[in-house]
Amino acid sequence: MNTPLAERTTEQLEQRARALNARLDQLKGAGLSLDLTRGKPSADQLDLSNELDGILRGDFRLKDGTDARNYGGLLGIPEARAFGAAILGTSADRVIAGGNSSLTLMHFVVDTAMHVGLWGAQSAWQNAGTHIKFLCPVPGYDRHFTICESLRIEMLTVPMTETGPDMDAVESLVAADPTIKGIWCVPKYSNPTGCVYSDTTVRRIAQLPKRAGEHFLVMWDNAYAVHDLADPPPRLANITTLLDAEGTEDHVVQFTSTSKITFAGAGVGFIAASRGIVKALEQVLAAQTIGPDKVNQLRHVRFLEGRLHAHMQHHAALIRPKFGAVLERLEESLGGLGVATWTNPVGGYFISLDTLPGLAKRVVARAKSVGVTLTPAGATHPYGKDPNDSTIRIAPTFPRLADVEAATDVFVLCVELESIAHILTARGAAPKQRSAQ
Amino acid sequence: MNTPLAERTTEQLEQRARALNARLDQLKGAGLSLDLTRGKPSADQLDLSNELDGILRGDFRLKDGTDARNYGGLLGIPEARAFGAAILGTSADRVIAGGNSSLTLMHFVVDTAMHVGLWGAQSAWQNAGTHIKFLCPVPGYDRHFTICESLRIEMLTVPMTETGPDMDAVESLVAADPTIKGIWCVPKYSNPTGCVYSDTTVRRIAQLPKRAGEHFLVMWDNAYAVHDLADPPPRLANITTLLDAEGTEDHVVQFTSTSKITFAGAGVGFIAASRGIVKALEQVLAAQTIGPDKVNQLRHVRFLEGRLHAHMQHHAALIRPKFGAVLERLEESLGGLGVATWTNPVGGYFISLDTLPGLAKRVVARAKSVGVTLTPAGATHPYGKDPNDSTIRIAPTFPRLADVEAATDVFVLCVELESIAHILTARGAAPKQRSAQ
Repeated sequence: MNTPLAERTTEQLEQRARALNARLDQLKGAGLSLDLTRGKPSADQLDLSNELDGILRGDFRLKDGTDARNYGGLLGIPEARAFGAAILGTSADRVIAGGNSSLTLMHFVVDTAMHVGLWGAQSAWQNAGTHIKFLCPVPGYDRHFTICESLRIEMLTVPMTETGPDMDAVESLVAADPTIKGIWCVPKYSNPTGCVYSDTTVRRIAQLPKRAGEHFLVMWDNAYAVHDLADPPPRLANITTLLDAEGTEDHVVQFTSTSKITFAGAGVGFIAASRGIVKALEQVLAAQTIGPDKVNQLRHVRFLEGRLHAHMQHHAALIRPKFGAVLERLEESLGGLGVATWTNPVGGYFISLDTLPGLAKRVVARAKSVGVTLTPAGATHPYGKDPNDSTIRIAPTFPRLADVEAATDVFVLCVELESIAHILTARGAAPKQRSAQ
Repeated sequence: MNTPLAERTTEQLEQRARALNARLDQLKGAGLSLDLTRGKPSADQLDLSNELDGILRGDFRLKDGTDARNYGGLLGIPEARAFGAAILGTSADRVIAGGNSSLTLMHFVVDTAMHVGLWGAQSAWQNAGTHIKFLCPVPGYDRHFTICESLRIEMLTVPMTETGPDMDAVESLVAADPTIKGIWCVPKYSNPTGCVYSDTTVRRIAQLPKRAGEHFLVMWDNAYAVHDLADPPPRLANITTLLDAEGTEDHVVQFTSTSKITFAGAGVGFIAASRGIVKALEQVLAAQTIGPDKVNQLRHVRFLEGRLHAHMQHHAALIRPKFGAVLERLEESLGGLGVATWTNPVGGYFISLDTLPGLAKRVVARAKSVGVTLTPAGATHPYGKDPNDSTIRIAPTFPRLADVEAATDVFVLCVELESIAHILTARGAAPKQRSAQ
């Protein structure tokens, strides 16, 4: 077990800093080019789905006889809607199977709520005569924030806990301010902390529309619904059941996709909502497209039907060692130092680490100077502004295992070095600062 | 040659009507179920592209080494952008290759012009403080009109001629009313007349933004760019060259797709515009998606590269007899009667027929009563309102040839019968009217 940095003498810290700097200088010479930035599957994960291309073997007929190659089918093919419903725990008639991007579907839903209205002709948020706000649990997913920014929706942050958003904070905010019209949720393996919402949190989310002002919308992005690393995996409460019980089913729209099941850029995205919301979305969609790519939907159903669980276990077998490599190194190098905390997810694509306040940007810049690219500090917060400058998102899936190891070795070194510099500065010593270049 | 109906005696017309009614009664008993409504490719056309599925044979790498399966590439893969550029006669850096629906891309562009602005921060049409209008050459494409309606853009009609929109009318309207912000154009084999814009029309369109108010947008939907039935095909002037010469390149956005080249519902859509407009669209797109389906784009390039012309000739060989069957029957049964005019396209997906004023709805209803479904009368006009109630769109590609023949036999019979009824009514006779049921 490491001794906490704060308990070490200034001399000890200075000596340690010299050793770390020497190691960094060595690494600079090594010409590293490593990347832990985005939650992308690795090439060997993608290989698991290569048979998608060609799987139809000339048979393009749906079970109902429809030719998947031709126009039509605005809500997606019945088989795909049923597949999405099974993942999200709802029924096929409440699901829209779309194109390759659930992000596009999310933008579509928020855009529709803003400009057209999800709850009848007068319900468009733009008619509210005031600007609109969304709650964003932080740390969170930068692309959710981008959707809000692009639609000029103001973002208010609430803290993320190990059981989901701080629901006391959420409830009191929405009760006090009816211009708060929505909240972003990644309920399972939240991006980036990896937490799974507790049953209590899911129930309180299902009740939230009753406490909020009118036309409230929960954006339930269940991107990692089947992306488990542990066996048995944690169980997420079924929000559809809770919504129906509460009568709030018109105020939660769920999303998922096969992006991290098959091909990240060529999968199928899904919306699940109440029948009323599906109908409202269908009317808007009708002006925008004749229908989604049904051939690709059919490929996915033929490929995944009856073997999703086994397929996801193959993914887990490839991802688990990479998460392990990061977590081992964090524990070994930073454990006990008292300068960082991190999450230990059992699924999803990310690990989140918090440095001492004010160090995240420095750590990211320091790592960059030795050829290791991390997600920009601040990206986990709206407007790119982490008020504590402490959260760093680590995405270990894409690089090869050896590169994950090498990149994490650099990362922990940078965290320790910046922490020492910080402590020495606080002690009023004049540490031999080295710029991060 | 048939004798014009107007020149026949009332007795002759009544006798002819009895014969036609008897024939209709026979047909009612036959239980027909035929459909000439939508411009869909037939199953044997779709079969031409079946090898798309499986064509990648495990090789998902782009020429530049990028893995098409993973995330990224907002503007589409370079190979697909070059392919779209070749069809539209522009350069790859001015093209966005998107998803399966050019209609979605068109909605995206008009929506962006409305809510975000294509020409800088203050250029969004919604900021104009007035409602916005578009010119719609009629007859035209109903889904263009739907986009306008969904965005609450008022539609003004201008007549379509054999050389494109009536440019005198277009020019004087846009010069007089700066709230007219756009025009819809299908420059080659226009939907539904099949006309090809003349060189003069294309040039005048390229000059139009100089005559119009600020932030004018030409929506140039070149859906049938390579969908020729004649050899050699008519040549459409290259609008990109003309725009660059006029300095109006920021005001015309072009579209095309492979929907009627490969699979109607599973192809690739394209946008072409100036570099400035591409950049503006890219910024908006970045909030909506991580990228299009690059795997499907790669399939299309691998399948079509170097063989597009031959492939389209296979389509033409399947479509030509169907157009021929319709046109022969129109000429044989209606030629010389003086009660209908129709177009004789050498490409595209439609034939447009005009009845005597006030008869289109009756003809469509009459055909429906014997099991032949036609595109609803009025669909070729904004708000579904054809002021003359005379235009009927005929789409011969989807049914089998025998069904096209049978459906057209019913159709011409209905046109003749309704025309006789109309003439007899005008003469003050009391024709033995039969309801269309």
